[in-house]
Amino acid sequence: MKILSGVFEDDRTDGQVTTGTPIALVIENVDQRSKDYSDIRDKFRPGHADYTYHAKYGLRDYRGGGRSSARETASRVAAGAVARKVIPGVVIRGALVQVGPHAIDRKNWDWKEVGNNLFFSPDAKAVAQWEDYLDGVRKAGSSCGAVIEVVASGVPAGWGAPIYGKLDQDLASAMMSINAVKGVEIGAGFASAALSGEENADEIRMKNGKPEFLSNNAGGILGGISSGQDIVVRFAVKPTSSILSPRRTVTKDGNDTDISTKGRHDPCVGIRAVPVGEAMMALVLADHFLRHRGQVG
Amino acid sequence: MKILSGVFEDDRTDGQVTTGTPIALVIENVDQRSKDYSDIRDKFRPGHADYTYHAKYGLRDYRGGGRSSARETASRVAAGAVARKVIPGVVIRGALVQVGPHAIDRKNWDWKEVGNNLFFSPDAKAVAQWEDYLDGVRKAGSSCGAVIEVVASGVPAGWGAPIYGKLDQDLASAMMSINAVKGVEIGAGFASAALSGEENADEIRMKNGKPEFLSNNAGGILGGISSGQDIVVRFAVKPTSSILSPRRTVTKDGNDTDISTKGRHDPCVGIRAVPVGEAMMALVLADHFLRHRGQVG
Amino acid sequence: MKILSGVFEDDRTDGQVTTGTPIALVIENVDQRSKDYSDIRDKFRPGHADYTYHAKYGLRDYRGGGRSSARETASRVAAGAVARKVIPGVVIRGALVQVGPHAIDRKNWDWKEVGNNLFFSPDAKAVAQWEDYLDGVRKAGSSCGAVIEVVASGVPAGWGAPIYGKLDQDLASAMMSINAVKGVEIGAGFASAALSGEENADEIRMKNGKPEFLSNNAGGILGGISSGQDIVVRFAVKPTSSILSPRRTVTKDGNDTDISTKGRHDPCVGIRAVPVGEAMMALVLADHFLRHRGQVG
Amino acid sequence: MKILSGVFEDDRTDGQVTTGTPIALVIENVDQRSKDYSDIRDKFRPGHADYTYHAKYGLRDYRGGGRSSARETASRVAAGAVARKVIPGVVIRGALVQVGPHAIDRKNWDWKEVGNNLFFSPDAKAVAQWEDYLDGVRKAGSSCGAVIEVVASGVPAGWGAPIYGKLDQDLASAMMSINAVKGVEIGAGFASAALSGEENADEIRMKNGKPEFLSNNAGGILGGISSGQDIVVRFAVKPTSSILSPRRTVTKDGNDTDISTKGRHDPCVGIRAVPVGEAMMALVLADHFLRHRGQVG
Repeated sequence: MKILSGVFEDDRTDGQVTTGTPIALVIENVDQRSKDYSDIRDKFRPGHADYTYHAKYGLRDYRGGGRSSARETASRVAAGAVARKVIPGVVIRGALVQVGPHAIDRKNWDWKEVGNNLFFSPDAKAVAQWEDYLDGVRKAGSSCGAVIEVVASGVPAGWGAPIYGKLDQDLASAMMSINAVKGVEIGAGFASAALSGEENADEIRMKNGKPEFLSNNAGGILGGISSGQDIVVRFAVKPTSSILSPRRTVTKDGNDTDISTKGRHDPCVGIRAVPVGEAMMALVLADHFLRHRGQVG
Repeated sequence: MKILSGVFEDDRTDGQVTTGTPIALVIENVDQRSKDYSDIRDKFRPGHADYTYHAKYGLRDYRGGGRSSARETASRVAAGAVARKVIPGVVIRGALVQVGPHAIDRKNWDWKEVGNNLFFSPDAKAVAQWEDYLDGVRKAGSSCGAVIEVVASGVPAGWGAPIYGKLDQDLASAMMSINAVKGVEIGAGFASAALSGEENADEIRMKNGKPEFLSNNAGGILGGISSGQDIVVRFAVKPTSSILSPRRTVTKDGNDTDISTKGRHDPCVGIRAVPVGEAMMALVLADHFLRHRGQVG
Repeated sequence: MKILSGVFEDDRTDGQVTTGTPIALVIENVDQRSKDYSDIRDKFRPGHADYTYHAKYGLRDYRGGGRSSARETASRVAAGAVARKVIPGVVIRGALVQVGPHAIDRKNWDWKEVGNNLFFSPDAKAVAQWEDYLDGVRKAGSSCGAVIEVVASGVPAGWGAPIYGKLDQDLASAMMSINAVKGVEIGAGFASAALSGEENADEIRMKNGKPEFLSNNAGGILGGISSGQDIVVRFAVKPTSSILSPRRTVTKDGNDTDISTKGRHDPCVGIRAVPVGEAMMALVLADHFLRHRGQVG
Repeated sequence: MKILSGVFEDDRTDGQVTTGTPIALVIENVDQRSKDYSDIRDKFRPGHADYTYHAKYGLRDYRGGGRSSARETASRVAAGAVARKVIPGVVIRGALVQVGPHAIDRKNWDWKEVGNNLFFSPDAKAVAQWEDYLDGVRKAGSSCGAVIEVVASGVPAGWGAPIYGKLDQDLASAMMSINAVKGVEIGAGFASAALSGEENADEIRMKNGKPEFLSNNAGGILGGISSGQDIVVRFAVKPTSSILSPRRTVTKDGNDTDISTKGRHDPCVGIRAVPVGEAMMALVLADHFLRHRGQVG
């Protein structure tokens, strides 16, 4: 990764500082092998953007680095690192909470565990199960999806807006924009539909001179504005679409055919989505911090 | 509702036509009763935006028509009616698919039933159950949530974009921006996490000279671009926060207190969210239709 | 004018206060007489937007209140009044500095005179000349243009940005967007082309512990950012296009014809543009104040 | 210059084609000499953005490639080359029409001459005079300004909008955003203030079955929308601020001092602004072409 512009350094700045203006980063797509693309250049891979991209633009860059490749998310992670520096008081952490059909036991949640395993699992006990499950998936030439949870702590009450630019709508947009994401929820999310009003509406009590919520079904956002509680977002990643098992599809010239995708492919791209989700949270919050400062000083 | 500007009519236009420029609509908030607001003016109602709005702006319009009121969604429905005229080939329909913990049986889905009951239920058999359930909720002074599904048919392949302005991210933003919504999913949504790659990636076959998908787990969107299949979005609405049962909260001056909300309040605001969701779908699609026309002619 | 939303008042607010969210104002176009429009409904008035509007949209609201009417600027003046409240330390004043070919003598500039005459002239001596000149223009069924100068004092150094959202580019956009404006300049403007580098670049000296510019050819903006000096913008308004003298034109059906515009029409719409220019200055500065606060805290 | 993304090429595309998505270009700032910046790092150069940039951000990149450097306009010219491809039917040409106080004689205008001299002068007779004049300016260690005219032919009637996104306001914004520009005018521009209504409003007659304007004081834009005539924009560039003659200024620590700028510096940066103005015209028109296509199909 290279910084193209927006930073400055001399003998007086004690390292790189921003010039106050946009920072341009570039990540070269170097790891793209000149492999044989003859199979996928004319076939639409099911689950991929091949067909829709072609339908819109009439052509498509099929060489492992096309506009629809999840490689694009690397730039989000890089940008997220900058965004975090804009909101130093905020701590953003992500975790994998479900792999295929196997969810963690939330009672075991321990943020410290996230760094101890390759799954970003906060539940140490889930790791072995997931390993077994993924081994089977890989051997079957198949793939599976996942659910990621991202939590931001330290966001003060007041970021966001009541209509247009709601904090939750911008988070939904950001997370849904990540490749392969099919669902986003905040706080209790879809489960809130089954709660009673008494259970759902987080009660408040004064504590140490400040209002404190007694639960967090709202996921830290009420009416589009942060409440000062942890901001809690979950999103679902569909199974990797590139699988070894042959699938039915058509060619761009309109003939029925089959395709199976060889080469390096994670059976569960959702795992890699954890840092991407953190980055998107950081980007949305940094934006809202700046807007909030503009709005109310 | 009144049209303030953007339309024109004379003896040659055969009714109102647009002037090609923005249409301004106004809906007066007339049904606001000069009731006694002394209770809620100083107390933060749990589950509402009272606390967060106050935290941001230092004041709050507590009189039944504040900026955070769901009454604002009436303007979305009005705007949605205009948006539908922009995309005449698209049919947008919404339905209630879950009330509290009670989901419909999707095997019974019949769009014609939606107009036959007050719940917008596509499953005639769910209606009686929901009526009973809601009666109980109402009598208990409680409330419940719901899940809404909105489907757009007739959207051609190609609307959207691969990065920035993805169709799915804009739909997620739009639905999450509706009051009380806590989750949005597209196609198989959160359930896709538990599918195998083979199950999830919708296969394609030629039919009548055109590619046809054999399933629709993608919900009509791949890589941020419409596929020509039905666009399927679901969103979860939390339980109505205004309930009769007293709840713990604090006053704006920092004292512990209780609050119970009297007056007209739907025990399940999710029901009213069906036309709102349809309207938001129409607005997003109309935007994307215009953008698409600009992008590719 | 009516405020539709965005303000709030109760017994504790000491008058109307904003709710922190957008303020919607409406000015009804009441003064529109049901006169005979048969002449202009099918003819394109030279100098007006009739032809271009019709070319774009295929129809046109010809009834004195169309989208292209300068009546629209009333809404700008109303919005400008709100904008001024956002930047209380800034004083914005406009003046007419040229009517037809007759410019003021800048040596006579006295802001106090602006309120003493109907021309907003800062040069008391120009008034009689302009009155005579305009009388002749009116009697001839003709019209004339004008140049307006708007000055903002009290803007601190730092508002704006070095690229994208430059303060001067936003001012140019704002002023050029006023109906009938054909030119915008800042500081020395077009005259700067004929200055030498020594004359043009405003020198700086410390005064009372602060940098002070010894001249203001920059018009208070350097590199897109305010310098703390007065912001000085001038714009040219073309002659009123509605004139009594018959002019050659065509009908929308493609026939040659003549048109002369009867009815109330200022021979010099530029005079009314003074408060509009002030309002646009206020709107741009209020935007930049908020952005600046967001950008640098 | 390098293309980072947005284009694609294989054996079937007959050269590079766009992928339909944003094209990223990079121009490395390679020609920046590691010269001694000790003089300007602490002094604010009059006429430059040094003081204002520092006032806003608290620091400033003083090394010949800072954010406020006119070198940034190279990227505009590169982007303009792409924009021209979006609007193939439009021909955009720029010319220098004034150097210092010396304007061309418009009767001598010949577009073919523009390529025959280093001044982009359309008036062959002006060249010798300008050469003499600039020699004197250079020898005096001084500088001078210029006026540029950019003309776009082939723009159909209908691009733009009556309010918000007016074609003229976007052109004004674009031209004023170029470094050192202090004024922008369209068509008759500031001179229109001194015209009579009869002279100014361009009359129309049918010719070959189409409306034709008999003059072009409007500069091709009426009511924010293109008329089908040539779009004519002029802008004034102030004298180069970097001059050899010492000028009074202050240091960032608040001390009076003098500065004279050595090194390569055009005595008239306005000459180089001709291709930049063309590029900005192309960018604005390409934007409006796409918007127009979205708006009216």
